[in-house]
Amino acid sequence: MIAKKMQSLVNNNSVIRQMFEEGRNMAKEFGEENVYDFSLGNPNVPAPDKVRETAVMLLEKEDPLTIHGYMNNAGYPEVRKKVADSINSKFGTSFDENNIMMTVGAASGLNCALKAIIDPGDEVLTFAPYFVEYKNYVSNFDGVLNTVQTDHETFQPDLEALEEAVSTRTKALIINTPNNPTGVIYSETTIKGIADILNKKQKQYGTEIFLISDEPYRELVYTDAEVPYVTKYYDNTIVCYSFSKTLSLPGERIGYLVIPNEAADHEDLFTAVTIANRVMGCVNAPSLFQKVVAECLDEKADIEFYAKNRDKIYNALLSYGFRCVKPEGAFYLFIETPVDDKEFAAKAKSEHILVVPGSSFALGGFVRLSYCVSYETIVNSLPGFKRLSEHYELS
Amino acid sequence: MIAKKMQSLVNNNSVIRQMFEEGRNMAKEFGEENVYDFSLGNPNVPAPDKVRETAVMLLEKEDPLTIHGYMNNAGYPEVRKKVADSINSKFGTSFDENNIMMTVGAASGLNCALKAIIDPGDEVLTFAPYFVEYKNYVSNFDGVLNTVQTDHETFQPDLEALEEAVSTRTKALIINTPNNPTGVIYSETTIKGIADILNKKQKQYGTEIFLISDEPYRELVYTDAEVPYVTKYYDNTIVCYSFSKTLSLPGERIGYLVIPNEAADHEDLFTAVTIANRVMGCVNAPSLFQKVVAECLDEKADIEFYAKNRDKIYNALLSYGFRCVKPEGAFYLFIETPVDDKEFAAKAKSEHILVVPGSSFALGGFVRLSYCVSYETIVNSLPGFKRLSEHYELS
Repeated sequence: MIAKKMQSLVNNNSVIRQMFEEGRNMAKEFGEENVYDFSLGNPNVPAPDKVRETAVMLLEKEDPLTIHGYMNNAGYPEVRKKVADSINSKFGTSFDENNIMMTVGAASGLNCALKAIIDPGDEVLTFAPYFVEYKNYVSNFDGVLNTVQTDHETFQPDLEALEEAVSTRTKALIINTPNNPTGVIYSETTIKGIADILNKKQKQYGTEIFLISDEPYRELVYTDAEVPYVTKYYDNTIVCYSFSKTLSLPGERIGYLVIPNEAADHEDLFTAVTIANRVMGCVNAPSLFQKVVAECLDEKADIEFYAKNRDKIYNALLSYGFRCVKPEGAFYLFIETPVDDKEFAAKAKSEHILVVPGSSFALGGFVRLSYCVSYETIVNSLPGFKRLSEHYELS
Repeated sequence: MIAKKMQSLVNNNSVIRQMFEEGRNMAKEFGEENVYDFSLGNPNVPAPDKVRETAVMLLEKEDPLTIHGYMNNAGYPEVRKKVADSINSKFGTSFDENNIMMTVGAASGLNCALKAIIDPGDEVLTFAPYFVEYKNYVSNFDGVLNTVQTDHETFQPDLEALEEAVSTRTKALIINTPNNPTGVIYSETTIKGIADILNKKQKQYGTEIFLISDEPYRELVYTDAEVPYVTKYYDNTIVCYSFSKTLSLPGERIGYLVIPNEAADHEDLFTAVTIANRVMGCVNAPSLFQKVVAECLDEKADIEFYAKNRDKIYNALLSYGFRCVKPEGAFYLFIETPVDDKEFAAKAKSEHILVVPGSSFALGGFVRLSYCVSYETIVNSLPGFKRLSEHYELS
């Protein structure tokens, strides 16, 4: 009765729901404070005050027909102009409102981008480990997602492997930096290397290959590392941005796409993403929050909170003998497991520690830990991690 | 470079954009007040005060992590419970939160419903004239939309034609009442007739056929006509609701799906629509406005405004000799044209009157007029309509 394409997702969903319910049951049995749930990427730093102040001001001062009304499917022109100006001032680019489409978060932005360019059978590449939903997004348009390995010591992309992987059917490469699940930032050298390969392959095959840069974690950076602005390195770039993490607004579903003038057929491409936004049913990004984020482009949630969490858990795990790349951004640790990752995750559960097996990100032998939790959760979880380390004789 | 499936939409879009720009140019040339734009279904009655009051209260009193955070893909359970209770008290149904998924408007709800059930090649039926986006929604999942005629004197569905049209490949019938573009409400007799035919065909073919009821105009009713609640007449019903028109919030993208327990495989179906919501990138309906609408379920925008517009324009057009079914709901008139509808629309433009040819709704020989405009626009447009009537010798 359910569509065939959905059936496996429905079956798989019951496994995830089971995990979730197990967590809820553990919280009931042992008390919320005695379960250390590192499984979700849900920001736990509140939105900046200016978000509330701006939303209240708009609601009280502006015409409800304007702030809650329809606008162009791409979003309010003045909001798109402000977003463009903000990107330009931060990264030295030259965008205007015709390069920006407001979206229902980055996830919907990715879907709009893929719908605009993917024909059935087209290949999309991404580096493993990767955010598992990419596979579903590509499958929505009957594309095929294939993975390219990263260096497991640094989680920087393996460029030789990329060069081998790009085929005549490759329509796009999705990158995600700062990265979920590794927290790694792709260096300028890496971005230049990727651009060189894609340019070479475009020329060789006579094709257009899009570099889709999924950037929900762009502002969550804990070092002085630069996150290169990808449109400056490669013409056929589409940037998918979300305010979910930067402004701690994941439930509001607000983000944008950047379609540079340098992209092939950029006017048609821009029209195509706006049509995709419309026909997939989003129609437009939520109106009030378009106007809110336009006034909060220089704000960000208090990332010192995440930085403190990162240092605490990273240093503790290292001292216990765990191995893990020190994340420069996002709010995840990707920890090497001494045994099979699913086995490790199950064992961790006996310590009331919930982490996600790396195989869910197409890379076994690791687990993902989200440190967007309270500092107390981190501190209180440490004895459990210590016992895990002793159990596996890591130190 | 654009996906093949999108290419015709992109080409077609330039025609629509041309029409829109022509309208904008007319407004510039002749003055905004001298152009009578009846082409858009954009509510022009402001949201009820309680929307603003509730939103401000939530922003000022509630934890930002809760009101802007992630929740279950189906929406906040307490919001879904309130929506279920409200439907139950209005229509005598017995829904609970497990029957309700909050959506990014009705358009996204329709997409979620279709993604959950449509396999490539499946047929979806709808009655012509119909909201033209249905075709694009069905095409998203490689389904085929076929139309069934209505009686052009009443715009009630032709049930004999429906019975002939239902095939073994028919997976769904989309209905829309009160109707866009005709303003007609399907009577209880009509709904019972549809249910009888679908039940008979399900039995005959051994299939499940869903009745998808698209209800953005449910609350916009100007007579004492009842809009039957479809789940009471047919088990395999999915209701797609939107607050866009009722609360004048079209830009906020907020609505819900109803999946009744009586629907086939209803648990899997509910899981499938929530997964569809996630993988198409909406993830969840905007969080703040979920909580706002939950407190405004008994509110509605001032429909007396639309009623006054309806009476004015309908009576005037009739007195000029135009023919048109008197709409009981929504905010559209579907006017018979004395010549080809595109030709008439072009002629109307010479009177600065903008209407949409019926062929855009799969029924030529009519034009759609949206009367969600200012009363002044209606009054000022009347001499132009009178001249059109004289030109075509209607009276």
